[in-house]
Amino acid sequence: MTRAAALPHVVIVGGGFGGLYAARALAGRPVRVTLLDRRNHHLFQPLLYQVATAALNPSDIAAPLRSVLRKAANVTVLLAGVEQVQLANHRLALDRGEIGYDALVLAAGAGHAYFGHDDWEVLAPGLKTLEDALEIRRRVLLAYEAAEREQDGAEQRALLTFVVIGGGPTGVELAGALGEISRQTIARDFRLIDPTKARIILLEGGPRILGTFPESLSRRAEDALRRIGVEVRTAAIVTRVTPDAVWLGGEQIRCRTVLWAAGVAAAPLARTLGAPLDRAGRVLVEPDLSIPGHPEAFAIGDMCAFLHQTGTPLPGLAPVAIQQGRAVADNVLRRLSGRPTRPFRYRDKGSMATIGRAAAVAVVGRLKLSGLIAWLAWLLVHIMFLIGFRNRFLVLFEWAWAYITWQRGARLITGPWKGRG
Amino acid sequence: MTRAAALPHVVIVGGGFGGLYAARALAGRPVRVTLLDRRNHHLFQPLLYQVATAALNPSDIAAPLRSVLRKAANVTVLLAGVEQVQLANHRLALDRGEIGYDALVLAAGAGHAYFGHDDWEVLAPGLKTLEDALEIRRRVLLAYEAAEREQDGAEQRALLTFVVIGGGPTGVELAGALGEISRQTIARDFRLIDPTKARIILLEGGPRILGTFPESLSRRAEDALRRIGVEVRTAAIVTRVTPDAVWLGGEQIRCRTVLWAAGVAAAPLARTLGAPLDRAGRVLVEPDLSIPGHPEAFAIGDMCAFLHQTGTPLPGLAPVAIQQGRAVADNVLRRLSGRPTRPFRYRDKGSMATIGRAAAVAVVGRLKLSGLIAWLAWLLVHIMFLIGFRNRFLVLFEWAWAYITWQRGARLITGPWKGRG
Repeated sequence: MTRAAALPHVVIVGGGFGGLYAARALAGRPVRVTLLDRRNHHLFQPLLYQVATAALNPSDIAAPLRSVLRKAANVTVLLAGVEQVQLANHRLALDRGEIGYDALVLAAGAGHAYFGHDDWEVLAPGLKTLEDALEIRRRVLLAYEAAEREQDGAEQRALLTFVVIGGGPTGVELAGALGEISRQTIARDFRLIDPTKARIILLEGGPRILGTFPESLSRRAEDALRRIGVEVRTAAIVTRVTPDAVWLGGEQIRCRTVLWAAGVAAAPLARTLGAPLDRAGRVLVEPDLSIPGHPEAFAIGDMCAFLHQTGTPLPGLAPVAIQQGRAVADNVLRRLSGRPTRPFRYRDKGSMATIGRAAAVAVVGRLKLSGLIAWLAWLLVHIMFLIGFRNRFLVLFEWAWAYITWQRGARLITGPWKGRG
Repeated sequence: MTRAAALPHVVIVGGGFGGLYAARALAGRPVRVTLLDRRNHHLFQPLLYQVATAALNPSDIAAPLRSVLRKAANVTVLLAGVEQVQLANHRLALDRGEIGYDALVLAAGAGHAYFGHDDWEVLAPGLKTLEDALEIRRRVLLAYEAAEREQDGAEQRALLTFVVIGGGPTGVELAGALGEISRQTIARDFRLIDPTKARIILLEGGPRILGTFPESLSRRAEDALRRIGVEVRTAAIVTRVTPDAVWLGGEQIRCRTVLWAAGVAAAPLARTLGAPLDRAGRVLVEPDLSIPGHPEAFAIGDMCAFLHQTGTPLPGLAPVAIQQGRAVADNVLRRLSGRPTRPFRYRDKGSMATIGRAAAVAVVGRLKLSGLIAWLAWLLVHIMFLIGFRNRFLVLFEWAWAYITWQRGARLITGPWKGRG
């Protein structure tokens, strides 16, 4: 690698689907690549709700970036936070030091949006990272434990009431998993409370859950949720969240566990660009995914709003990020060799959401699937996308085990503890 | 269970090996049992170092107490911390409320002892809980990441120096695993540092490591450690630990990661008893494991010092706790039915320590084993003792995978993060 320093330097920010697939596409090409991430692992976010609901282990859905990219000798992985992007002089300010680039790919993803109610975040955690998932798992399992010890009837009911805010795929999957936990997994584990009496309430502000899916599938998903004990309420606008209740206007739902699945916003790094953003903080990119006025800098995945195909932003899905990662790698190489870049085009292969044991909904082209067949399709697709044989095998094992025994393998509460026992 | 309230109430504090085996032995017997633990899981501590060194997942070596004891209908599990034991009036003060008992089994285990240097705890964490293990994993993996980014040579060497204090089984196993990580697992994962140049130093204050094993096995363990790159130093008395160094008298070892495996002390709960304790804070129990002057209260496992067999306390091993758990259950039933209790006697089935890939030492009766055969024996015994088929299977899979691929399946850094990327 003595010639390496002479090669153009491509910096990729973020090791999610977009960044990782861009790095892979640049492996072995005539560029030096540095992949920056604050985490040491790529996370398979579509299955994060299964970690939150104790079905999977963190390492089942995460792979160390270094080990995924080991054979890509021209790719260096650095654990670093990016504080600021200086588009004008082609530099990034890091949490420690700085780094220059010849081409830049921003793929830092998105976080939660609380729509001006940032104080709700501690009361109603969202689900984006492994830490989020473990915190949600902890809250859910501790609520049952606290209910078992509680003498006061009203407080016990509040402890056994779980509210999920947001009826998109994440909210539906979380609520479905909570339903299964209460009705099946831990149904016989307590002596003083009856977990099957727990209330799981899914609140959606719009007229129906899974609003991006065809209406018939929304109805089927709602039916499937009701069958496993989830109360679904649409047109339910949350006006207040307190430590012991969620308010819908004048109506109070007493509860101790609230989960947030209602909105996302691009990583705050986007705000340091000085580039045009949409209301969710996403970079309004050009057709070739570059940042307006900066043809050597690109933004992909949840960090960008790509309006050139349908007029509205593409959905925040793994397949969009993956396709953009591959496309951006090609455009980076074109740009660095002086060839014209190519406009990006998303090829929609469908979308799906799972509701629980053997129940899911899926749209593939004009095909609408629900029930067992959609669930099997969901299983297949998610296993195929998991990075690396090892994780695929372990997840399959955990699922088979859960399916046969009705148990969940990862029912551990970890985190800070008090007391002296 | 309408007659339940009439049955005598046995309270067990702690769901480790001692408490869990006591609860199991009391299942279905004419008593009401309440098992109190601050955690919701039983932890297989002998394999904790494998979680700390990224070979296993937390849930591979932990099982929810409720699910282990589901079929024991007369056993109630409560997640609670015990603040104080009031032996005189047969009550326990909990973190919230209190609970009375007819018979008591204290099995709250042990924590770390820093021999009057409690300020070392944050600098040199020990290994007793899943949180400890994840924190150690985090520090070790982050040290390599920081070294990859470091420009200063001396600081980079400090980041790549790992010191383990204490040459008992835990220290030997930790050092061996750290040696394997640097020499094999991540040997080719970095671009700017060479992980195989990392120094792993095992410090033992006594004349040899594994002091409780026969001398020939200590020598073999030392040889095996040296072969995987661990520097073993005996008669090394640590006098100071600072954020960037360990001091042996006037000698300074610059390092950024220090792990503590040098001493244990019984759970602080023992100090609330007003009963006679030894220097490590353990209850000096009677031959039948009861607390002197309180025949209805017992202490077992790492919480007690049992001097009646060899004149010195029995070692802090799982088999001791398990045998005491079973014996105490029998004595509790004898006591409650007015029969005389029986003195406890430990049946030593051997002890073992593993050093790394296909290397271990073991003593079984008069048999001394080392190398591959000891390692296979170690494997077999640990798999057999793991609670539940599921964990057994997963651990076997992880081990087989690691053996074949030289990889570690759980190389995730989790915990608090900074930066905005």
